[in-house]
Amino acid sequence: MTKHTFKDVPGAVTAPQGFSASGVFCDIKRIGTGKGSNKGQKPDLALILSDAEATVAGMFTTNQVAAAPVKLCVERVARGTTRAIVINSGNANACTGKTGLKDAFAMADHTAACLKLQSEDVLVASTGRIGVTLPMPNIRNGITDAAARLGNTPTHADQAAEAILTSDTRRKQVSIEFQLDGKTVRIGGMCKGAGMIQPGMSATGARPMALPSAGLHATMLCFVTTDARIGTRALQTALRSSVAQSFNRITVDGDMSTNDTVLVLANGRAGNKPVTRARAASKAPPARIRDAQQFQAALDHVCLTLAKMIVRDGEGVSRFVTVRVSGARTLADADAAARAVANSALVKTSWYGGDPNWGRIIDALGYSAALVHEDKVDIGYSSPGSKKVIYSLKRGQPTKTSFKTLCEQVAGPEFELHIHLNLGTAGALMYSCDLTEEYVDFNKGDVSDPASLGG
Amino acid sequence: MTKHTFKDVPGAVTAPQGFSASGVFCDIKRIGTGKGSNKGQKPDLALILSDAEATVAGMFTTNQVAAAPVKLCVERVARGTTRAIVINSGNANACTGKTGLKDAFAMADHTAACLKLQSEDVLVASTGRIGVTLPMPNIRNGITDAAARLGNTPTHADQAAEAILTSDTRRKQVSIEFQLDGKTVRIGGMCKGAGMIQPGMSATGARPMALPSAGLHATMLCFVTTDARIGTRALQTALRSSVAQSFNRITVDGDMSTNDTVLVLANGRAGNKPVTRARAASKAPPARIRDAQQFQAALDHVCLTLAKMIVRDGEGVSRFVTVRVSGARTLADADAAARAVANSALVKTSWYGGDPNWGRIIDALGYSAALVHEDKVDIGYSSPGSKKVIYSLKRGQPTKTSFKTLCEQVAGPEFELHIHLNLGTAGALMYSCDLTEEYVDFNKGDVSDPASLGG
Repeated sequence: MTKHTFKDVPGAVTAPQGFSASGVFCDIKRIGTGKGSNKGQKPDLALILSDAEATVAGMFTTNQVAAAPVKLCVERVARGTTRAIVINSGNANACTGKTGLKDAFAMADHTAACLKLQSEDVLVASTGRIGVTLPMPNIRNGITDAAARLGNTPTHADQAAEAILTSDTRRKQVSIEFQLDGKTVRIGGMCKGAGMIQPGMSATGARPMALPSAGLHATMLCFVTTDARIGTRALQTALRSSVAQSFNRITVDGDMSTNDTVLVLANGRAGNKPVTRARAASKAPPARIRDAQQFQAALDHVCLTLAKMIVRDGEGVSRFVTVRVSGARTLADADAAARAVANSALVKTSWYGGDPNWGRIIDALGYSAALVHEDKVDIGYSSPGSKKVIYSLKRGQPTKTSFKTLCEQVAGPEFELHIHLNLGTAGALMYSCDLTEEYVDFNKGDVSDPASLGG
Repeated sequence: MTKHTFKDVPGAVTAPQGFSASGVFCDIKRIGTGKGSNKGQKPDLALILSDAEATVAGMFTTNQVAAAPVKLCVERVARGTTRAIVINSGNANACTGKTGLKDAFAMADHTAACLKLQSEDVLVASTGRIGVTLPMPNIRNGITDAAARLGNTPTHADQAAEAILTSDTRRKQVSIEFQLDGKTVRIGGMCKGAGMIQPGMSATGARPMALPSAGLHATMLCFVTTDARIGTRALQTALRSSVAQSFNRITVDGDMSTNDTVLVLANGRAGNKPVTRARAASKAPPARIRDAQQFQAALDHVCLTLAKMIVRDGEGVSRFVTVRVSGARTLADADAAARAVANSALVKTSWYGGDPNWGRIIDALGYSAALVHEDKVDIGYSSPGSKKVIYSLKRGQPTKTSFKTLCEQVAGPEFELHIHLNLGTAGALMYSCDLTEEYVDFNKGDVSDPASLGG
């Protein structure tokens, strides 16, 4: 495998040529201190605009209770091109019935009017509490304001990245630069998500069998921009592959949201020859194959970087754990084993306590849908960046490694858990985290202050 | 349906004729203050003896990583009769390899020697930390002691019920009396379980498709005695039916243990004509049909009473919630919908906070494997013993019921959640609980004191 390297650049979603962004406060939670402009409150409405028609690809929650903006996006992404995205936080516009759907389209209509676009060229995303209709006057004021404030500086990107957050404690952004066909190409991205996190997304929102049927929840939203030139089908293929190895491999609390959305816009301003599909590239000239691989690697890097940021900033999270399963009989087994461990309440509380409790891990493997033979299982730990695995269990037998040494492996803020089932050659990984009292405290909310209650 | 009533009687597992029990402290966690006798510490080893040969039935964890005592029981219950059960807490004898299996059989051997039985007539159960071999000298001392202390008073039953507890805060016992064939019959039972609770048990420990493939964990153990006369096959059929509606319908944390075990011993001392199988009874005389139904109802009552005690005493639990799903397309859908809601971290933290958050409930329904149409879902609440359901959602639309009224429905220590999918006629229920900071604090343990770490 080729090792791809990318140069970090500033600007996030505004780093690629031809993209501008903004973020404003319009009081979507109706706290009552704003009138469509930022009065020092956290911004809650963001815009992203491409100055030229962009090809678009999307991946969406497979939750059967999909939010109104997800339904709008599934329909409009199928058109293949777009110009702008309007995003609000503070209200998911989910379980809001016909009013919700009308509101989502009205958000696009008003954005199009402000930006002199066709409504069909605008996509919509929302995150926040479920079951409350949007305060449309505030939203309209916010859109008007955001359209007037669009710009392509890192500050503009920061404001947009801030506006999409809910329970997140920090902005999540990345932007990189690389070469394609002799041209300089950039990809930028921003995302949000902190709870109700175990996305299982597909391109149509419908549920393929391979996706987790249990698990997942807080909405994750991700918006990626690039000035690469790439056709719709190639972009969708590349995004599906990137999401499968990033956002669909994370879990905070095993709950899948009604609003999970990833959108990529490619406006071609870099002027490269169109990137082909990675598979189709096998009959293409070597230079085109290299370009397709380079673009895929770059998109993978952006998605994985953002996905990991979500887990690290998960609600109440104190430890980030990479669960690596290998030696499974089938890929489905590997996935089931990794998800069972990554979502076990008892495993996650032991991580919180810094307890290298392999008993709870093998228990979770045993009740997973994966074939497991107790006397073949290895369980070990490694530190980030280290290739050395310290085993607590080998072929089902505790090793002679001391409890103190094992505790040291799980004491840091990040570690990797290695599970070998020794029954085959399939592997899978999940990015997970501990379950803490802070998560419980945050999510129990405060019913005396309904505005404080989360999604 | 006939309404069956039973008279509560004292004595728990010693209430039926011909059963004695004991509970002693033998320092299984090697705290170091006991020498095979009770020095004021919580007892950790229990015995149950039937003075005559008893028919036996069992249900066992479907976790692929089954503990040694489970393997022993699956083998010996197949013989159809037994005489005694030896049970220890503090150590699960799970993931202990060949040594563990040898130790489980040695526990039976020593019990048989003390009670002048054949080893094959002794069953074994264990609960506690996984992956540590049993301290056999302590265990042998404890068995010798327990055999010498057997008795049939409620105090003896209490000591046995105390000895099987781990993180439980109280004993869990029940005993009832009723008439069969003109004879007075009793059923008694005791159980334990507080965390690692979502049993999915079968008669052979092997996994039928209908059982949950994800979910469940702390061990639950249950031991039922009766002086009814009933054949092995009828007893196994009755137990399978009772467990399906009780222990296999509870969840504390969604983790299934390596040790879950339910055993029923029936020694026939009541002298009734043998109870037939409920299905076979359809060709039997009306009196025999009534007897079979009466016995089934009594066993159902004992199992359900004990199962609910486990959830109410779950680790850190402050609210007990009955999740009732109806109107599902299929039974599998109803089960999937009920389990998704009953195990959602976000739903359970909202219960802790007294937040009637229907958004999180419909989100969990949407990602479950059940077919769900958002615009058909009803969600409501009722108080224990009340038939009045207060709805927060009707056909996917929020009702006009005030937030304050809804908060009142979920404010008490127990309530029922009613979910109608309105897509069919199948229903299912789960007994669940909230997720609290106390659960997290308890299960994170204290690595500076490894003896404090749970299963």
